[in-house]
Amino acid sequence: MKYGHFDDVHQEYVITTPKTPLPWINYLGCNEFFSLISNTCGGYTFYKDAKLLRLTRYRYNNVPADINGKYLYIKDGDTVWNPGWQPTKTELDSYECRHGIGYSRFTSSKNGVKASVLSFVPLNDNCEISQLTLTNGSSEDKKLSVFSYVEWCLWNADDDMKNFQRNLSTGEVEVQDSTIYHKTEYRERRNHYAIYSVNTKIDGFDTSRDAFLGAYRGADSPEAVENGKCTNSMASGWSPIASHQINVDLAAGETKTFIFVLGYIENPEDEKWESYGVINKTRAKEMLAKYQTDAQVEEAFAALQAYWKQLLARYTVDSADEKVNRMVNTWNQYQCMVTFNMSRSASYYESGIGRGMGFRDSCQDLLGFVHLIPDRARERIIDIASTQFQDGSAYHQYQPLTKKGNSDIGSGFNDDPLWLIAGTSAYVRETGDTSILTQMVPFDNDMSVAAPLMDHLKRSLDYIINHKGPHNLPLIGRADWNDCLNLNCFSAHPGESFQTFGPSEGPVAESVFIAGMFVKYGEEYAQLCELMGDADEAARARKEVQAMYDAILKDGWDGDWFVRAYDAYSHKVGSKECREGQIYIEPQGFCVLAGVGVKEGLAEKALNSVKERLDTKYGVMILQPAYTEYHLELGEVSSYPPGYKENAGIFCHNNPWVSIAETVLGRGDRAFEIYRKTCPAYIEDISEIHRTEPYVYSQMVAGKDAKFYGEAKNSWLTGTAAWTFVNISQYILGVYPTHQGLSVDPCIPKGFGDFSITRKFREGTYHIQVKNPQNVEKGVVSMTVDGKAVDGHIIPYEKGKEEYNVVITMG
Amino acid sequence: MKYGHFDDVHQEYVITTPKTPLPWINYLGCNEFFSLISNTCGGYTFYKDAKLLRLTRYRYNNVPADINGKYLYIKDGDTVWNPGWQPTKTELDSYECRHGIGYSRFTSSKNGVKASVLSFVPLNDNCEISQLTLTNGSSEDKKLSVFSYVEWCLWNADDDMKNFQRNLSTGEVEVQDSTIYHKTEYRERRNHYAIYSVNTKIDGFDTSRDAFLGAYRGADSPEAVENGKCTNSMASGWSPIASHQINVDLAAGETKTFIFVLGYIENPEDEKWESYGVINKTRAKEMLAKYQTDAQVEEAFAALQAYWKQLLARYTVDSADEKVNRMVNTWNQYQCMVTFNMSRSASYYESGIGRGMGFRDSCQDLLGFVHLIPDRARERIIDIASTQFQDGSAYHQYQPLTKKGNSDIGSGFNDDPLWLIAGTSAYVRETGDTSILTQMVPFDNDMSVAAPLMDHLKRSLDYIINHKGPHNLPLIGRADWNDCLNLNCFSAHPGESFQTFGPSEGPVAESVFIAGMFVKYGEEYAQLCELMGDADEAARARKEVQAMYDAILKDGWDGDWFVRAYDAYSHKVGSKECREGQIYIEPQGFCVLAGVGVKEGLAEKALNSVKERLDTKYGVMILQPAYTEYHLELGEVSSYPPGYKENAGIFCHNNPWVSIAETVLGRGDRAFEIYRKTCPAYIEDISEIHRTEPYVYSQMVAGKDAKFYGEAKNSWLTGTAAWTFVNISQYILGVYPTHQGLSVDPCIPKGFGDFSITRKFREGTYHIQVKNPQNVEKGVVSMTVDGKAVDGHIIPYEKGKEEYNVVITMG
Repeated sequence: MKYGHFDDVHQEYVITTPKTPLPWINYLGCNEFFSLISNTCGGYTFYKDAKLLRLTRYRYNNVPADINGKYLYIKDGDTVWNPGWQPTKTELDSYECRHGIGYSRFTSSKNGVKASVLSFVPLNDNCEISQLTLTNGSSEDKKLSVFSYVEWCLWNADDDMKNFQRNLSTGEVEVQDSTIYHKTEYRERRNHYAIYSVNTKIDGFDTSRDAFLGAYRGADSPEAVENGKCTNSMASGWSPIASHQINVDLAAGETKTFIFVLGYIENPEDEKWESYGVINKTRAKEMLAKYQTDAQVEEAFAALQAYWKQLLARYTVDSADEKVNRMVNTWNQYQCMVTFNMSRSASYYESGIGRGMGFRDSCQDLLGFVHLIPDRARERIIDIASTQFQDGSAYHQYQPLTKKGNSDIGSGFNDDPLWLIAGTSAYVRETGDTSILTQMVPFDNDMSVAAPLMDHLKRSLDYIINHKGPHNLPLIGRADWNDCLNLNCFSAHPGESFQTFGPSEGPVAESVFIAGMFVKYGEEYAQLCELMGDADEAARARKEVQAMYDAILKDGWDGDWFVRAYDAYSHKVGSKECREGQIYIEPQGFCVLAGVGVKEGLAEKALNSVKERLDTKYGVMILQPAYTEYHLELGEVSSYPPGYKENAGIFCHNNPWVSIAETVLGRGDRAFEIYRKTCPAYIEDISEIHRTEPYVYSQMVAGKDAKFYGEAKNSWLTGTAAWTFVNISQYILGVYPTHQGLSVDPCIPKGFGDFSITRKFREGTYHIQVKNPQNVEKGVVSMTVDGKAVDGHIIPYEKGKEEYNVVITMG
Repeated sequence: MKYGHFDDVHQEYVITTPKTPLPWINYLGCNEFFSLISNTCGGYTFYKDAKLLRLTRYRYNNVPADINGKYLYIKDGDTVWNPGWQPTKTELDSYECRHGIGYSRFTSSKNGVKASVLSFVPLNDNCEISQLTLTNGSSEDKKLSVFSYVEWCLWNADDDMKNFQRNLSTGEVEVQDSTIYHKTEYRERRNHYAIYSVNTKIDGFDTSRDAFLGAYRGADSPEAVENGKCTNSMASGWSPIASHQINVDLAAGETKTFIFVLGYIENPEDEKWESYGVINKTRAKEMLAKYQTDAQVEEAFAALQAYWKQLLARYTVDSADEKVNRMVNTWNQYQCMVTFNMSRSASYYESGIGRGMGFRDSCQDLLGFVHLIPDRARERIIDIASTQFQDGSAYHQYQPLTKKGNSDIGSGFNDDPLWLIAGTSAYVRETGDTSILTQMVPFDNDMSVAAPLMDHLKRSLDYIINHKGPHNLPLIGRADWNDCLNLNCFSAHPGESFQTFGPSEGPVAESVFIAGMFVKYGEEYAQLCELMGDADEAARARKEVQAMYDAILKDGWDGDWFVRAYDAYSHKVGSKECREGQIYIEPQGFCVLAGVGVKEGLAEKALNSVKERLDTKYGVMILQPAYTEYHLELGEVSSYPPGYKENAGIFCHNNPWVSIAETVLGRGDRAFEIYRKTCPAYIEDISEIHRTEPYVYSQMVAGKDAKFYGEAKNSWLTGTAAWTFVNISQYILGVYPTHQGLSVDPCIPKGFGDFSITRKFREGTYHIQVKNPQNVEKGVVSMTVDGKAVDGHIIPYEKGKEEYNVVITMG
C-alpha cells in the first residue's frame, strides 16, 4: 500500500494523505539553521545545535502523534482548518504534501479555498520562510482569518522539558508591528533571540500560550481561533508562543500571499540593546527586509533549487531501472547530505539532546557525502582528527558547538581509529588533495601537541597493532561498530550504560570485525603512504595487514563463516558453538569486502551462509538465532526483544557491506537483490508494513523473530545512507574514485541493461556510457576515453581537464 | 473567586469544577509507592524514585494541560465521558473532586449514571487502588462499557523522553486473565515489573497505545472506546499501555463496583521467571488477592484513614479562627509530610528527574515533620549526615535510591552544615532521644571514617568558624539558602550552572544570612553539648556565637536593616549603597529570629524596614528594588524577570522567618498579618489570581514588579510548608519543644481569643488551654499543669507521664 508517489521530474515525494502510518518528514536547511517538517506541518527548528539552541518546542512521542509544529489556521466562517490537516484534523477537500530537496510544499483546499504553503530555509540565512498562498476558488467573496502558531522552546531543549520551577518564570517577548520577538534569557547571558513575522499588517497577536489556546485546550482547538480574535497577550513566564492574526478579504477568484519568517538573530555583546530593556532589532529588520515580497521569496527559492541541482548533478545515472535512477540521482544523495549535517542528533527518533557528533558515524557519513562538497568533508575530517588522543584512540563523540570531545562517553571504541583512515582516504581519492595529510592537527584539541594528519592516521593504525588479544586479533574495547556488543561491560543493573559501565575495556575480548576493517583500511593507509612517497611505511603497513589477514583465517574462521568476536573469557561469539547468535552479519560483510578469504574460497562460503541463515524478504538480519535471554557477557545486543535492533533486526547499515562483498565476488544478481530489499524506492508499495518514509533509509527493519516483522524504525539518520550510496554508486554501478583516477567496474544484475553515468570528479565532468552486450554481472572488456582505447578500467586523471567521454564495455 | 471549598469535617478540599486555573493535585502514598493525582485524574506513579522507577508516563507542560493520567472512560451509547472530565472533556451533569489526606475521590454524573472513583495507596503496599462505583440513577436499564487507560513509562523517566531510538524497540507486556503485566527490560537487568488489574472478568484489553488510541488520536478520543471494542493488542516496542474493557449491564437503580489495582512488583533474581520467557507472577497475585472485594478495599482505606488521623492528632488547635484550625490541624501538617517524602523531586513543577534529596531542603522539611514520625526523621538525619565530608562541608544533594552524594553538584553551599544542627536539635528537642548523638555516622558514606553524630555537628560548626571572610562573616561559597545568590560564579554563557560554574567558592564573598544562622544554631549546638555534659564545648561554641553576633553588628548592619552579603569584590549586597537589590528579606528574618540586634533596638528597625520596603498585599517580597539587569557578580538572582522567583518575587519560604522574627519582638498582630498573607486558607477567595491549589503553599508568588502580580507558582514542594508550620505551631500559637519540656508562649494578634491545643510530645498528650483575658499579643503570666501552678512557661517533662492538662494565662 502506498500513501503517495515519487515525482521524479521535480525530485519530490508527493504524499496524498495526511494519515501516513508515521509522520513522514523532511529537513529544511543546509548549513546552520535547520527545521524538521512532517507531512502534517509538525516539527521544530534549531540553530546549529538541536539541544542548545532550539527555537521551537516539540514533544517527542506525543499523543496525538507529531504535535507541535508551525501551524497556520484558516478560519472560514465556522470552519477552521489547516493546510497540513493537523492539528485541527478538519477533513480537507484536497490535500497534498510535496517533500522536495530542502523544501516542502503543502497544497490543500476546503470549501472552495485553496491554501498552498511553501516552506524552506534560504541558502546562507538563519530563517525559515513559509509562503502562504490563498486562492478563493469559489464563486462567493470570502472573509477569512488566518492565524499562525509556533510555541517557543526556551532554547536548551533538555532543560526546557525538566526545569519547570525556573523556566515557567523566565519567558519574555516583545512585539513590534508584525514581528514577535522571543527574548527569553536575553536579559542575562544570551546574545540571541528569535523572531516570527509576517509581511503584512496584522489584526492581532498572541504571545501567551494559555491566552491563545485557552484553558485545557490543545493546538487542535485554540480558543482565540474559535473566537476569531487573538487577545494581544504579552507573555510573562509560562509558555511564550507567537501567533499572528490576519483578516483576509478574498474575492471570488482572488489570490493573496503572505510570507511568514521564523528567524534567529545574534547580536554582539555591546549591541544587545536598543534602549533600556528593549532588544536591538536592527539585524532582525535587515533579515526581514530580504523576504518582504513574493519576488524576493521566489529568488531565494530559485537560488536554493539551483544550489541543490548543481550538488546532485555531481553523480547521476540514467538506467532502465527508474528506481535506481531515483535513489541515486535524488534521494540517496539527499539523505547523505542530511546525515552529514545532522549526524545522529535530530530526527523523529533522535531527540536532538542526547548525542553529539559520533567519531565513527561522521567518518562514515562522509563516505557518502565527500563527492558533494569536498571542502566541508575536509573540515569535518580535521574536526574529527582533532579529538584523537596521542595513542591513536579517540573520543567516541564530540559536541558540534564546541568541537571538543565528550568525556562522559570517553574513548575505547576500538574501531574508531580506523574510520579516520577510511574517511581521509575517501577524501584524498575524491579530491587528490594531499595537502590535508600534512596539515597540522591537534590531539585532544590541544594545538601544543599537534602533528600532521598523516601522523594521526599512523597512530590510528598503530593503535590497532598495539591492542591485540590472545588470537592476535584486535581488542574490541567498549564496543566496535556494533555498539551493543559489550564484551567487557557485565552490566547487571538498570540505568548503567552498557558501553561504559564496568571495566569496559579488557585484554581478552577481540573483534573479527575490526580485523576485517584493518585489512581494508590498512591497505588504504598504505596507498596514502605511497602517495606521500613513504614506501617503507607502506610496506610496514602491508606486513601488518598480512598478519591480520592470517590471524583472521586462523582464528576468525568458523568453518562456514567468519566468527564475530571472542568474549572476555575467550569464548567465540557468532559461532556454531554458540546456542544463540551463531552467525553475525558484520564480519561476513567486512572481511569479504576487504578481500579476506576470497582467494581461499572462504568468502563465497561466508556469503552463502549469510544468504542461508540471515536473509529475509525485507533484508539481511544482523544475527541469528536471536538472543532470547540477556547475556551478561555480551551486553546490550541481548537486551532487545528478539528481532529488534541489534538483536536479530535487519540493521540496514550493514546490508550494503554484504552487497559490496558480493560485488567483490562478482555476483551482481545477489548484490543487487540485497540492495533492493532495503532500498526505499523498491519497498514503497509496502508502506503500511514498512511504515517509515518511502524515500529514505531507516536504521532498522524488524527481523523475522519480531512481532512486527518488516516494520522499520529510526528513519533518516543512519549510516545506511552513506553506505548504500557507496554500494550503488561505487560497487554496483561501479564508479570508484582511486588515487589514479575514476575506476569504472560495474557489478550489476543480469538484465540491468546499458546505462550511463555523469560524474563530477575533481575538475572534470565524466560522461560514462556502460554497455553490456553479453549481459554479464561483472567484468570490463574494453574502455575508451574520448574515443581512444585505454587499458583497464581506470580513467587516467588529467589535471585541469574538464570533460571526459568514456565508453565502458562489459563482458 | 473560588473553585471549591474546604470540608473541615472530612479534612478534604472539595473542588466543584474541573476547570481550575491550574491542575490542582494531591499525593497518594506514604512510604515508597507514590502517585500524583490532579482534579481531572491527571498524574503519574512511581516507586521510591521519581526518575528511576516511574510506572506511568506523564507529559509535563503539555497541551492540553495535565494530560496523562489514570483514566476511566464510560461509554453510554454514543456518549463517552470521564469521571474526572479530562481527557474527553465531555460536559458532565455533575462533578466533584475531593482531595483528602492520602486519597482523592471523584464523583460525577452524566445521563443518569453516577460514577464515583476512590483512589488511594494502601498503607505499606506498593499499589494504587481505584475503586469505581457506578450507579444507574435513571429509570432505564443501561448497557455501559468501561475502559481503563494508563500509559506505561519505560521506568527511567529521563531516558524515557529522550532515547527513542532504543526505547521504541524495547516495550514488552504479558496479559493473563484481567491483569496486564508491563515487563519492559525485565528480560535483562530489571527485576521488577508493573501490573494493572481489575477484579472482574474483562471483555477485552489493549496494550499497544497505537491500537487503543488509533492513528493521530489523543487520549481525548481513543478509537477503541469510540468503537466500543478493545483490540486485544499485544505491544511489542513503541508505547505499551494498559487498557481493560468491561461491559456493564446496569439495571435502573443498580450499583456495581470495580476495583482497579496499579502495582509494582519486585522479584528476587533467582525467582524472576515462571517458565521460559514468562515472568513469575506469584507476588503480583498475592498483592491482587488483597484487593478483590469492596470489603477488603474498605478495610485498607479505613486503615489509611486511621493512620492519618493519629498522625494529625499529634498537634491540633481549637481556636475561634477556623482558617488557623484548618491549616494547622490538616493541610499544613499534610504538606509537611508530603515535602518530607518528596523533597523537591516530583510535583507539577518539579519533573522528578532533575534533583535528588537536598541536604538543606531535607533538614528544613524535617523541622515541620519531626513531631509526626520521629523515627523517620531520625533515619533521615543519619542519611543526611552520612553524606557530610570530614571537614564539615557536605554534598548539596544526594540520591534517594543510593543515598550517596551527588558529585555533579558537589559541596560548597556554605549554609548546608548548619542545617544539620538545626534538624538534629529539632529531633532531640522533640524526642529527648540523645542516643542519636552518639551514633556512629560515616563521612561521605565511608564507614571506615565514621564518627558520632555529635562530632558531625561539631564539624558543621567548625566549618563556618574556619571559613570566614574579610569582615569575619561566613564565606558564602557557591550560595547560601538563596541558591540564586551566586557571588563567586560570574557565569557569562547560557547553559552554565549558575552555582557550579567558575570558581564558585572564594575567599571574599560573605553571607550575613549564614551569620544569623550561626547565631541561632550555634546556640542550639551549645545546648546539645550541655545535654551531653560537655560544658567546655558549649562555652567554646557560645564564644564563637558572640563573635559572630558582634561581626554582624559591626559589618552586617546597614543603618536601617541588615546587609545581605558582601560580594567577591567586598562590595555590599542588599544595602542602601546598591542601585538595585537594596534590601533582602533573609538576613532581616533570620538575624532577628536568632535574636541579633534585639536588645540594641536594631531588630525592630530591620523589621520596620521590611514592612516599609518589602511588604505587599500578597506577602513579603524577597528583595527590592528588583534587578532590572543581569549582574555578573550576583548571578542567577538577577537573571529572572523582575518580580519572579528570587528576583523580587514573594518567596514564601522566608515569610515565616520574618513572622517568627516579629514574635521575637512580641508583635503578634504583625506576625499574624505576615502569616495570613501567604496562608492558603486565607487566600482561597482569590484563586483566580493565585491560581495554584488553595490548600497548600507554593514556593513563590509573583511580586509587585511582575506582570502577573499575585500569581503563585511551584506549589506543594517547598520549605514553606515546614517553616510556616514551625511558625504557626511553635511561635504564633507558641508551643515550642525544648530539651526540658514543652514551652508555651504564644504571640497572637489582638482579638484572637482563647484557644486550646492538643499536642503529643514524647510519651505524653498535652491538653493546653490558652486564656488571654487582657487581649495581649504576647506574654504568659501564669501556668498550671494538672491544676498546679508552675513558674515560667515550660511544662516540665516527666518521663512516662501520659497526660498533661495545662492552662496558660496570657497577660
